[in-house]
Amino acid sequence: MNNKVYFTPGPSELYPTVAQHLQEAIAQKIGSISHRSKQFQEIYASAESGLRELLQLPDEYEVLFVASATEVWERAIQNNVRRESFHLVNGSFSKRFFETARELGREAHVQEVPFGHGFHVESITIPETAELVALIQNETSSGASMTVEEINQIRDKAPADALIYVDAVSSLPYPAFDYSRVDSVYFSVQKCFGLPAGLGVWLVNDRCLAKARQMQEEGLSIGSYHTLPSLLEKALQSQTVETPNVLNIYLLAKVVADMNHKGADQIRQETEAKAARIYTFLEQSKLFTPAVEQPAHRSKTTIVANTTLPASEVNKHLAQYDLQVGSGYGKYKETQIRIANFPAHSIEQVEKLLEKLKELES
Amino acid sequence: MNNKVYFTPGPSELYPTVAQHLQEAIAQKIGSISHRSKQFQEIYASAESGLRELLQLPDEYEVLFVASATEVWERAIQNNVRRESFHLVNGSFSKRFFETARELGREAHVQEVPFGHGFHVESITIPETAELVALIQNETSSGASMTVEEINQIRDKAPADALIYVDAVSSLPYPAFDYSRVDSVYFSVQKCFGLPAGLGVWLVNDRCLAKARQMQEEGLSIGSYHTLPSLLEKALQSQTVETPNVLNIYLLAKVVADMNHKGADQIRQETEAKAARIYTFLEQSKLFTPAVEQPAHRSKTTIVANTTLPASEVNKHLAQYDLQVGSGYGKYKETQIRIANFPAHSIEQVEKLLEKLKELES
Repeated sequence: MNNKVYFTPGPSELYPTVAQHLQEAIAQKIGSISHRSKQFQEIYASAESGLRELLQLPDEYEVLFVASATEVWERAIQNNVRRESFHLVNGSFSKRFFETARELGREAHVQEVPFGHGFHVESITIPETAELVALIQNETSSGASMTVEEINQIRDKAPADALIYVDAVSSLPYPAFDYSRVDSVYFSVQKCFGLPAGLGVWLVNDRCLAKARQMQEEGLSIGSYHTLPSLLEKALQSQTVETPNVLNIYLLAKVVADMNHKGADQIRQETEAKAARIYTFLEQSKLFTPAVEQPAHRSKTTIVANTTLPASEVNKHLAQYDLQVGSGYGKYKETQIRIANFPAHSIEQVEKLLEKLKELES
Repeated sequence: MNNKVYFTPGPSELYPTVAQHLQEAIAQKIGSISHRSKQFQEIYASAESGLRELLQLPDEYEVLFVASATEVWERAIQNNVRRESFHLVNGSFSKRFFETARELGREAHVQEVPFGHGFHVESITIPETAELVALIQNETSSGASMTVEEINQIRDKAPADALIYVDAVSSLPYPAFDYSRVDSVYFSVQKCFGLPAGLGVWLVNDRCLAKARQMQEEGLSIGSYHTLPSLLEKALQSQTVETPNVLNIYLLAKVVADMNHKGADQIRQETEAKAARIYTFLEQSKLFTPAVEQPAHRSKTTIVANTTLPASEVNKHLAQYDLQVGSGYGKYKETQIRIANFPAHSIEQVEKLLEKLKELES
């Protein structure tokens, strides 16, 4: 029996109801049902409508299931960029999206600020030729984030035809986006949705779909099975092109229903309350300091701290109490810790974590 | 509680030990562990070494995990075909691989025989320019299969540099391939491995990897995160590029260990014994006939029968006894049934199925 509470930034602690939903999935033999059956279509439709309610998604958006957020980067470039994309980069994951565009032979422009910094919207210059503008609402590697207000200002700075993509991999459902000000938002289920990994959710509006169709009509290759038109065709039947991760779509439907029962506002309030506790602790700590200097750019869901004690030592101490935080990302592995503050983490668990981190100071 | 036994050709009946392994995964919180942790690397290594043993895979092969067999089609073309591929087509899935090559802008050649027919090796002509030869060992849509002996003859008919790909999506671990006579074999876990869907396994030899590297060095785009070199780099560390379906890799490791405990030979003998029972029944039936005429080309794992009673009526009858077979594929939906004969299906379950199918004759 493993009683550890995972504050790692994904995979992370599972949402408290997941174990029970998995028991039900076993009893109902969800792993055996056909992905072409009515039963599967109902599961898909339930996940989709639940997400529409939770995120307050407008009708012009489609909910598409792919294998990972990493896959979304590739499909976004293939389907929505003829030649040029533009990327805000302030950490490892925003950089990977930029590199993906290069690997796929596109001219990718970049505006980069140091790891852990946020962006000042007034200083962002988007090339007139940019077809896709990649924003990173929450940089999981560094804990820097953009506010929804900042994101909303981008539309007026971007070319009229440019599609605005928002990486919310490790923050949704926390940010209350104005979906009319952007074109696509994507996330992974193993972060704030508290599910096992193996499913990416790609929200796209009609502008993204129209662009993909245009490119296809011009004879450009936009991929094979996971083009936007192919994904949409099946999504309209509450199905997927390939045999998908049925079990995870089932669990997503269930957890999203639980979240709707609780309410998005309540989840946001709890997220903010827990984040406030964590940042207050970090600011008062002798060992830790918030890694993101500017408070407005500090993530509420993936909180990164500089640590004077090596991250591995911090986790060694925490392990005695069945607790684990994430180590820093890449070259920050030992000099930073990352604390996931997801809906799965209760305020009591956060309090216990902070208490045990505090012990390290004495 | 769902007590149905699924003879559908994937997703299908789960391997009998899966429910217990899922319980252990819940207790061990496998859904929460990091895909960069030592614990995950051990799970990955266990799945890989187990597969190497079960399939008797030579050292020059790598075991790569992707999202689905559908993804393998795309990655194979991107990584291993500059211009031309060649496809044997005798059903819907072999056709999809061919279409994938076209969608990706390649010149795809095809040799097609009618749905449900096998190939006569002597009549196969492979163009000298073919870089990839796509064989379909087991066509899940029609129940036609190639024998290992037939597959082994292809090497001598193919250009020396051509890479021979074998679709064993719904047959491995049954076929005892001579891996030195082919270059890549791929399968999905929701078929004969009796797992929930959401994971494809791509076995590639050093020739496939060398070709991908050559193409990359020539400046051709071979994709982004799931290029063969990227997949290999992480596989050598027992990791994946993206956050994968950790839970399914865990379950695969466990089920493969169970299969090794039983032994590949035993699994093959049982598969043949059950297939013999099913085909004997079909040949003697007044309602059903084997859809594949030539006995040598009849699949042992996905058995397709023509039915005079609509497939939906057959399943309505079976539902009373908590049994389900697959309907026919595509336009054969009502005129054929498909019976999965996977390692998860016991001889007792097969006997019960045949008994209930027989009732329909009276």
